[in-house]
This record gives sequence, structure tokens and C-alpha cells, in this order.
Amino acid sequence: MSEVADYIDINKEQFKHELFDFLRIPSISTDSDYKNEVIDAANFLLDNLNNLDLDRAEVFETSGNPIVYGELITDNSKPTVLVYGHYDVQPPDPMDKWETPPFDPKVRDGDIYARGASDDKGQSFTHVKALEAYQETDTEFPVNIKFIFEGEEEIGSPNLVPFIEEHKDLLECDMVLISDTAMFAEDTPSITYGLRGLAYMEINVQGPNRDLHSGVYGGAVDNPANVLCEIIAQLKDEDGVIQIDGFYDDVVELTEEDRETFKKLPFDEEGYKDELGLKALKGEKGYNTLERTSARPTLDVNGMWSGYQGEGAKTVLPAKAGAKVSMRLVPDQDPKKIAKLFKEHVESIAPDTVTVEVEEHHGGHPAITDLTFYGLQAAADAFEAVYDKEPFFTREGGSIPIVADFQKILGAQSILMGFGLNSDAIHSPNEKFALKDFYRGIHTSSKFFELLPDYS
Amino acid sequence: MSEVADYIDINKEQFKHELFDFLRIPSISTDSDYKNEVIDAANFLLDNLNNLDLDRAEVFETSGNPIVYGELITDNSKPTVLVYGHYDVQPPDPMDKWETPPFDPKVRDGDIYARGASDDKGQSFTHVKALEAYQETDTEFPVNIKFIFEGEEEIGSPNLVPFIEEHKDLLECDMVLISDTAMFAEDTPSITYGLRGLAYMEINVQGPNRDLHSGVYGGAVDNPANVLCEIIAQLKDEDGVIQIDGFYDDVVELTEEDRETFKKLPFDEEGYKDELGLKALKGEKGYNTLERTSARPTLDVNGMWSGYQGEGAKTVLPAKAGAKVSMRLVPDQDPKKIAKLFKEHVESIAPDTVTVEVEEHHGGHPAITDLTFYGLQAAADAFEAVYDKEPFFTREGGSIPIVADFQKILGAQSILMGFGLNSDAIHSPNEKFALKDFYRGIHTSSKFFELLPDYS
Repeated sequence: MSEVADYIDINKEQFKHELFDFLRIPSISTDSDYKNEVIDAANFLLDNLNNLDLDRAEVFETSGNPIVYGELITDNSKPTVLVYGHYDVQPPDPMDKWETPPFDPKVRDGDIYARGASDDKGQSFTHVKALEAYQETDTEFPVNIKFIFEGEEEIGSPNLVPFIEEHKDLLECDMVLISDTAMFAEDTPSITYGLRGLAYMEINVQGPNRDLHSGVYGGAVDNPANVLCEIIAQLKDEDGVIQIDGFYDDVVELTEEDRETFKKLPFDEEGYKDELGLKALKGEKGYNTLERTSARPTLDVNGMWSGYQGEGAKTVLPAKAGAKVSMRLVPDQDPKKIAKLFKEHVESIAPDTVTVEVEEHHGGHPAITDLTFYGLQAAADAFEAVYDKEPFFTREGGSIPIVADFQKILGAQSILMGFGLNSDAIHSPNEKFALKDFYRGIHTSSKFFELLPDYS
Repeated sequence: MSEVADYIDINKEQFKHELFDFLRIPSISTDSDYKNEVIDAANFLLDNLNNLDLDRAEVFETSGNPIVYGELITDNSKPTVLVYGHYDVQPPDPMDKWETPPFDPKVRDGDIYARGASDDKGQSFTHVKALEAYQETDTEFPVNIKFIFEGEEEIGSPNLVPFIEEHKDLLECDMVLISDTAMFAEDTPSITYGLRGLAYMEINVQGPNRDLHSGVYGGAVDNPANVLCEIIAQLKDEDGVIQIDGFYDDVVELTEEDRETFKKLPFDEEGYKDELGLKALKGEKGYNTLERTSARPTLDVNGMWSGYQGEGAKTVLPAKAGAKVSMRLVPDQDPKKIAKLFKEHVESIAPDTVTVEVEEHHGGHPAITDLTFYGLQAAADAFEAVYDKEPFFTREGGSIPIVADFQKILGAQSILMGFGLNSDAIHSPNEKFALKDFYRGIHTSSKFFELLPDYS
């Protein structure tokens, strides 16, 4: 097997250059202005798969962004791994906060800085390069492999689930391999076995039929911005407990065992605060930071707007105010049910002085993978072989809704083999991905494919 | 005197064309990008004064926008009227709400649509044209007149008060004439004898040192947007009573007589709601709409921002959130004192999970003019002569801080001879000014100058 590992070490620069080409494509799925760039990213991946010796590689059109598919069946007695990743990225704004342009990748202090470096171009690309390492060294590939890359993960994968349902046979597999999560800490590999779900909402408050002079009308006409603040302030109490009726009904409470697992994790709360520049943390009363960010549901304003945001002062009583509000969910909360409860609650507390509309953006189910699953053990040993450390098993606060869908539709469990770090600033300016973890990721992936047959 | 009135009627079209030229200048003082246009507007007025036969007309530079001055002393035994107006305008945004471009004046249904049409270019221009009517008809001008036009009214007149203090002799007068207010209703002239003051603040909340992924950090890191909403929601109680300690200490309570005066005014609350497209109004408990909008202080969010405001959904936990919040003040509230109380209160309720900064924008004192002042009587009779209706004496919710300053520095009371309407949408898209009131304004101004000497 050393040829494979050697090939990876020898070709690091080449892999980096290819990833940089991938990162230069602004495939922003949340903004329709970038439709063409999203398609460019899909074609970039298709070209990469075509350069491998696969049984098939093609692009499937959807009503949204295309799905890139590839497969290599080596031996039907071997396990089949479905590698999932996404080639779309979050918007880069606020642009002025980037030290170097988001779509002009640069390496600083051993980190690749670019939008999508960690989420998810850099991470998902590792598996393509791992397969290349086997084929370029004429080493028999130890398992059957299928690739599926979508371009709508950042907008809630509206077309992926229908695609999976229509192509159950094509996608049949023994497990799904996903690299779109973070390690517990630098040089501290971890395998995520739990993910939070998501319900993403938008509240729009309409007051008077036009912006008004705050002197002429102020005092008699209720202010949509003040009303929006009052509504949002009522969604949580001072203990950080969400006040939406029925919100916690389906939440699986943490067992003592769960809480012990969390306590075992090496977590430095002071370092965590320092890295964020915070004097104090706040969350749901009765839970610690790791529990709050992974095993408990939460509610956050993601965006808010009203009236005059420009320089200086404008004495306007705004006609409208709006906010994007999302809730992270845990087993067994259902995003559709939570969205409905949120809408009903907000409408029930809205005053009759304004018109409040609540719209549902995308959502996703929370997920848990069985800790005894053999794929997880192979992944753990692959990590240990490369990082020389036994990985932690953790739950993560982010959402990969598709994990629950793969389980439901294909009956396949997911292995979340993350090579990123929580400090990668994904979804933020100056997103980064450690170059060494890009390379170690390719090694870990190839090791995983090598070990897997022996565990099945 | 009929020659003067005839001249005004004959030259309506010409006056309109000149006003349109004035309105085409985007003299937006709140945005430094329009510095040159602000100066163009000052020069437009200077040219207009130079076309009159004045003793002097000139532009005074300030550290900000220039002050345009002109004077004509006809007879020292006659009263001297200082005409004040402002040539700067509010920003036009939201641009997409304008039916015709804000700086391309158009007449629809007898109304001039343009930013500044009513506030204050159209209204203040009436007095210049009134003097022109006297001079072009070789009619002796009945009083001494001084003009002072500033370009910083919409940003709180930072340089006007110092200018007045430095030029007390130059500006010495018996009264100040200002047309920058609204009539009580269409064809229903009114003279404003009370104005509210203003304290305009900005709150900036800083949470983590960067935007964060709401899944990875949500639940443990306090959200600046949620915190801002909680702060703003705490500024008023459910009865609309402002919760800032000491806020009401200096408020002069309404007397029974005051409340009777309000009751006399013909006010159609249903029509008021319909015109604004509102099902219900809300304000301070225990007061009616007219009292709430003119004789009681209030607090409004004028603008608010945080996180992602674009299309679709972005799962970000924003690093920052901010809001512009202003308070309208009534006698004897002091804007500096109120600003201080606001700052102290907000800082006192801010949690230690974020950093909250409170900045003071401009402020202004409330004002009341003595109802027995002879200038008010002359103004009332001038209105009645032109509109054929006895004007109401009203208090207005808007702020013209300079009125209190003229009183304090020059010892001169102000006559607020408004020709606008509350429905003029000043500070809003589609600002308008009735063409007939532009013309009636010129007539009323010339009549006022004619009558004034007999009342002194």
C-alpha cells in the first residue's frame, strides 16, 4: 500500500493546484446571479471524475442545480461506499472583512484561505484524489465506490431527496461517506455521530403603507421595527429557554451516559471564549457549552433589517421590518412540525397594529449514527493510522439534513469523516482549511478504503 | 396691492419652472457623496437672491455646508422679519418605491412629486418669490427682510447655531418666519405654535469577533441581533410608556385647557388609519392620537441591521447588530440630558455577553411660541385672506430645533407658516407638495408682509 501513500505525498502540489482551480469558481447557490458559476463547478468535478477510470461518470440535470455522479464497481462481494459532497458555497459577504479575495485562494501560515476551502470543496475533494492515488499506482481499489456531488446544499438540497428517491438502485450502497464536518480540535481527529436539524424561517412585519416621518406620526403609529424586536425578544426567556409552545415536546433528553461522554471531551472553555473575543457565554440554563452546541436545540437571528441603515441620521418611521430566524433541532424534533409551531406562535403574539407574515425557508432532520456500525470502526482506525491518535466520537451542532434522508431512503448509515476545524470560519469571512489536513484527509480516505473490507 | 397678487398669478408657470430647477439638485446632506450637489443648491439660492434688489446677498462658508444670506432694510421703524429655510434634503431611499425619480420633479393630480418639494425647498422658496412680486411691480416692500438658508437641517444644523451666535447683529430681527410645517388638513390652514424636540441615538452591539456558523456555535454564543431586540423591547412597556429612568421628569403635563384645544380640532381617526393602511393605532396609554403625535414624547427605531439580508437563507450567527433609535421630546425635556439617560439606561441593561456602544447623533430642543404674539395674528389674517378660512393653532410632532435656538440667542419668536400637508410623504418615497399651495403660499407670504406693520 505504500505506493498509494507515496503517490499522495509526491503529488501534494498538484492536488493543491487542482483544489485552487475548484475554489476559484464562485459557485454561490444562495444567489441566483451565480447560476452559471454553479454549473462551472459541477463541470469541474465531472472533468475530474472523467480523468479517473470509472464505470460511469455523468451529470444529472435537476430543476435546480445539477448533480454530479460517478461509480466504480470492482467486486460485488465488497462493501459499496457512496461518497457525498457539495460543490456549492455560502455567499462571501461581508466582502470587506476578507483579508484576501474569497475566490482567489491563498495559503497563509499553512492554511488555504477561500470560500469553500473547508465547506465543502476541500474536504469532499479528498476522496476523489484518494481514488486517483489507487488508480495511478495500479493498485486494486479495495471497495466499490459511488460519488454524488450536489450544488444545493447551502439552500437546503431541494432537489437531492427527490433524486435519491428516483435513483434508489443507482445509489444502493452499504454506507455513505461524508467529509463536511470538523475535527474536535487541531490534530485531534473525531467522528461525528450526531447532527442537529434545522428549521429556517423569515418574519416580515408590515406597518403603515409607506415610510413615515417619525416626528409627524411617531407616538400614534406602531413601529414595525419595534414590534419585530418585541416579537423576537419573546421567543426566548432570560434562561435561554425557547418559549414556542410545544417546541421541546419531541426532544430526546440527554442521558447520564450522554453527559458523561461530553464530560470526557477535552474542552477548554477559556480558550474557546478567547478565540471568539468574548467575555462571557450564554445559552440554555442547565447545560454546558458542548451540550448547548450539539445536543440541545436553539434559536438564532441570522439576519435583520428595517428602515434607514445608511450614514448619519434619518428620522423615518419605517413601513417594514424583517428578520431571518433559524432553529437548530435535535432528535426527535421534526423540522416541518417546528416550522409550523414557530409560525403559529409568532402569529399568535403579533399585535393587530401591524401585519406579520412568517415564511418557511429550508429545513432538515437531525440524525444519529449507530456507534456500533462497522464502518465507523474502520473510519476510526483509518484516522488513528494517519493522525496517530484515536479519534473522539462527537455530536455536532451543524446540520447535514441529507444524512437523515440517506438513512430513510437508502437505509444507509453515514460516516462523517471530517477533516475541518470549528475555527475554519465556514459561512464567515476568511474561511480556511489547513493544507496539512487536506493532505491527511486524502491519506485517511485511502486508508479507510483499504481497511473497510476487513471489518465488513 | 392687487398688482402684487396679479404678478403672482401671472407668473405661476415661471415660479414652477424655477422651483423645478431647485428640486433637480440632489442636495442630500446626510450623505457626504452629495457634497457638491449641496453646494450647487446653495448657489442656486444665491443666484435667486442676486436677481432681487437686496442690500446684500452672499454665501457664508462654514466647516460644513454653506449658509446663504440676504437682506433688505427698507425702514428701521418697520418690523424686521428673518426668513429661515433649508436647501438640503433627506436621502431618497428606498429608490424603488418612487413612481417617478426623486430628483426629476413631475406634476400628477396637481401635486409636485420630488424629494424636497415640501421639505423644504418648495415651502421656503415662496418667500423669495413674494419679495420678487413686490419688487417687479415696483411696490414698496412693507417690512425689513432678512433671509437665512442653511444646508444642514437634515443632519441637525451643526453649524447654524455657532453662526447665529457669531452674527447676532447681522441677524437681529423682530421675528423669524419659517415655512417648514404642515397645514392641519387640505384647505385647512394652521399655524404651528409648538414643536417637539429630538434626541437621535445609535446602538451598536458587538458579539463574537467574526460572523459564526449558527450550527457550530448556536446555543452557546449569545447572538448580538437577539440581544439588540431584547434591549429595544425593554425600552417601552406594553402601554407604550418609555422605561428609561428619569425620561419623563421634565415633561410639562397637558393641562385641561390644552386637552380641550386638541378636542376642538377636526380629526378623523378612521380616515387617518385608512390613509396609512392600518387596522389599529398604538401609542402611550391615556392619550389620544393628536396628543401622542405632538404633545407627548415618544421613542422609535428609525433603522436596524444585522447579519444576512440577502436572498434565500444564510445560517450565520452575526458578529454585529445595530439600530438607529430616536426620541421626540416635549417641553421642558433637554435633548442632551435625554441622550445621556438613554445611553446610561441601555448600557445598564446590556448583558456581559456582548459589547454595547451607544452613540449620540444630533438632537434639538422642543419649542412653544406665545399665542398672543402679534406676528402670529398677522400670519393668521394673511392665511384667512388667501384661504378664506381662519387657521387653527396647532402643535406639531416634528422637530425644528432651530426655533428654540432663535428664541434663546436672538430673543426672537418664530412664526411657523406651513403650507404643506402631513400626507406630503416628506422623508418618504414620493414626497409631494400641492402646486396650489405653492402658489397660495406665495400669496400668503406677500399678504403677511403687507399686514404685519399694522399689528406691530
